[in-house]
Amino acid sequence: MVPSPVPSLHTDKYQINMMYAHWKNGTHRRRRAFDLYFRQLPFGNGYAVFAGLERAVHYLENLRFTEEDIEYLAGQPENYDPDFLKMLRSFRFTGDLYAIPEGTLVFPNEPLLRLEGTIMELQLVETALLNFVGYQSLVATKAARIRHVAPKDVLMEFGTRRAQETDAAVWGARATYIAGFDATSNVRAGQLFGIPTRGTHSHSWVQDFDSELEAFRAFVRSFPDQAILLVDTYDTLKSGLPHAIQVGLELKREGKRLAGVRLDSGDLAYLSKRARQMLDEAGLTDTLIVASSDLDETTILNLKSQGARIDSWGIGTKLITAYDQPALGAVYKMVARYEQGRWLPTLKISSNPEKVTTPGRKTVYRIVDRKTGKARGDLITRVDTVIDESRPLILFHPVHTFRKKKVTHFRAINLLVPIFRDGKRVYELPSLEEIRNYHREQLSLFWEEYLRLLNPEEYPVDLSRDLWEEKQNLLNKIYASIREENGG
Amino acid sequence: MVPSPVPSLHTDKYQINMMYAHWKNGTHRRRRAFDLYFRQLPFGNGYAVFAGLERAVHYLENLRFTEEDIEYLAGQPENYDPDFLKMLRSFRFTGDLYAIPEGTLVFPNEPLLRLEGTIMELQLVETALLNFVGYQSLVATKAARIRHVAPKDVLMEFGTRRAQETDAAVWGARATYIAGFDATSNVRAGQLFGIPTRGTHSHSWVQDFDSELEAFRAFVRSFPDQAILLVDTYDTLKSGLPHAIQVGLELKREGKRLAGVRLDSGDLAYLSKRARQMLDEAGLTDTLIVASSDLDETTILNLKSQGARIDSWGIGTKLITAYDQPALGAVYKMVARYEQGRWLPTLKISSNPEKVTTPGRKTVYRIVDRKTGKARGDLITRVDTVIDESRPLILFHPVHTFRKKKVTHFRAINLLVPIFRDGKRVYELPSLEEIRNYHREQLSLFWEEYLRLLNPEEYPVDLSRDLWEEKQNLLNKIYASIREENGG
Repeated sequence: MVPSPVPSLHTDKYQINMMYAHWKNGTHRRRRAFDLYFRQLPFGNGYAVFAGLERAVHYLENLRFTEEDIEYLAGQPENYDPDFLKMLRSFRFTGDLYAIPEGTLVFPNEPLLRLEGTIMELQLVETALLNFVGYQSLVATKAARIRHVAPKDVLMEFGTRRAQETDAAVWGARATYIAGFDATSNVRAGQLFGIPTRGTHSHSWVQDFDSELEAFRAFVRSFPDQAILLVDTYDTLKSGLPHAIQVGLELKREGKRLAGVRLDSGDLAYLSKRARQMLDEAGLTDTLIVASSDLDETTILNLKSQGARIDSWGIGTKLITAYDQPALGAVYKMVARYEQGRWLPTLKISSNPEKVTTPGRKTVYRIVDRKTGKARGDLITRVDTVIDESRPLILFHPVHTFRKKKVTHFRAINLLVPIFRDGKRVYELPSLEEIRNYHREQLSLFWEEYLRLLNPEEYPVDLSRDLWEEKQNLLNKIYASIREENGG
Repeated sequence: MVPSPVPSLHTDKYQINMMYAHWKNGTHRRRRAFDLYFRQLPFGNGYAVFAGLERAVHYLENLRFTEEDIEYLAGQPENYDPDFLKMLRSFRFTGDLYAIPEGTLVFPNEPLLRLEGTIMELQLVETALLNFVGYQSLVATKAARIRHVAPKDVLMEFGTRRAQETDAAVWGARATYIAGFDATSNVRAGQLFGIPTRGTHSHSWVQDFDSELEAFRAFVRSFPDQAILLVDTYDTLKSGLPHAIQVGLELKREGKRLAGVRLDSGDLAYLSKRARQMLDEAGLTDTLIVASSDLDETTILNLKSQGARIDSWGIGTKLITAYDQPALGAVYKMVARYEQGRWLPTLKISSNPEKVTTPGRKTVYRIVDRKTGKARGDLITRVDTVIDESRPLILFHPVHTFRKKKVTHFRAINLLVPIFRDGKRVYELPSLEEIRNYHREQLSLFWEEYLRLLNPEEYPVDLSRDLWEEKQNLLNKIYASIREENGG
């Protein structure tokens, strides 16, 4: 099932205004290239998990201005020329897109998407692409951190009610599944993407009956082998667990099984240990313990270090909103202009040197050691650079250039693959299971030093020498011209 | 223009499972009442701005299970009975909804929505209602904080690219407009809600031309009196501003006007003062200064205290994601059961006393002093309580009950109004402008002590005596029953 298309007016007003200004100026068909990337890793993590490409692909394929859209624009104070609006009626995305496959581990300043097309279409799509890639990559990265501290437990995304509106809930659920979550509570995400959906029951189920025991009995009747009972409506140890055990034993006598109990408040370390003990003593050794209640990777790590006996985790607010850093801060920058038959690099300067863009049409190679199978670093190069794997490769840090290393016996994997050419899709979208498996394989490319939660080692992302020199040359040229205008 | 309906499967799996278990149990038509509320104010603010009702109304009015939904559910491992799925085909919302009007200032533990209906329908809608009300109220509250520090400036919501996906961008934009923002960059929010849309141009506009001057000239040609030029692509003071001034003077000679310049990086306090000086010296005194760049109420307050000369603010990431607290944490709790002709109060206990629910069908009165016109406190009462304005009213703190006050000469305004009765809407949705004006009036009901950003005074929200006693009685009864089961 394919989600409904994203409206074309899901964009910033300035994109429409720049499209219009280019059209008025006769420059709207100029061919340009843009990179989409982020500058800083979220959550202090050592990597990010790229996600959002499928959403971007559907968006670009279905981009149309409806009559309602045209009518809205016609009434705007900008007084757009009717011929401009007429042109929008037949607007289609006609450009090229290169992208890193979803599930790939990615790093700051690497082009995640590279787009080439008319300036008009490349402006229009900026806002939505940042929106899709930023949010899904952020949540996938958060989910990967949680998977890292609970490698063998069942992880369930339970965040819909706390998500920032409807779309975040479903696309966030998808992102967590890519990063290794097992299920989501969001039924629509199950319907759209085939993600397994799970749920227990709420406190109101218990409140709805005259007694907790009656409530539990009524619930297990509908799901004899699948029921998970929430035990904290009144008192976890004195009421919820004893009643759940009573019902579990009744099920057992009928040859059925109480699947689990859910703890949703209180001291989860203590309660889970007591619950395990009480269940085991009653002979309900295969009844699992599920926990929920404001969890994230830090609480899970701490609960585990306290010996908590939790088999399955339902994780909501902190995951779906990426609570500790709710925006990735992705950017989309022009990197090259096609003029008189060739691509000219372009850059944007900033008073913050980290924000100066890297000019030119680029790609990213992942350099993997043939002996260990582990990644040594990523190399950003010009798009036409061919790396000779038979010769040693010198990598150097783009800022602290004295930091160098020589790599031999390596494979150089070009991470950016063609997705659209001239507006036609040339890439078959992998299934969500394939993306999820690919993500797991990706993790095995990296030493644990890069993957750990706290103070990970910085993974090297270097510029090729020609690219580095081009950037310096262009910077010098622009500064010289500013000096000249200001009288030297 | 009405947004497309929210899919009925935008809910948690456990809602569907509880609906099913009730249906199997023959209890799905039981009549129940739920409150939706939050427990803590976000951002350390003294109040929250309620928003999201219109979205909730459209959702409830359009709630249907499509054939695709039924088909999806039929394939689930729960093995739902076909007769249950058949029943879903004719499912409609048939309940009652009472709600506080959008734009109202609201406080912890006040029922924002009260729903009465069958347990089946009230479970289904929980997730989406929390989703809508939680996010819009959160962003409206954040926007109100920003409006508070810049009461007379132009405030523009610029967050779409950093929003948590598509819906957040448009509904977030709406929430900021309710709280007094002037415009949004999101074109679809303009189309859906009639919010004014604004935009300038991006760095890529400048990079697209051989020189910044050429880029500026080309842009103002399309928007002769409305153009705002972004001046930091290369160097704000040495390149951007001199070029903008040159173009501004060219426009002036043609009898036109450069509307503004936009600062997007660097020291905004210093740059804005220099920019104002340079523009004024050139005679461009009516060219405004717009700032953007990771702004929120704290940065704006600080910039103003440094004498920044900024007329208009474009606020993105920190606002649209409610960056410092990206979830309101709203909850939805069963408060009463209709049994044998009468409503029985019900509650949920928690090991955290703040999380014990308040039982029964309730409403909220705002007690307004007739002399000052200012609110003295809110009083949560039983739904059938009539407050006699001619007699003194004793208010007391629900936890620290010794804190009492006597109020005379007051108006008691019932905040909850009927929205749906038996599934029929009985409320005319106000226009967005009306909501925005109503919000502004609401602010004038409150002393500045409650409205200030930092360490606001706690506004009193009290329980009526009978409600308070009912809660204590019910708590005692439940604990007595737990003790009895555990042998006293």
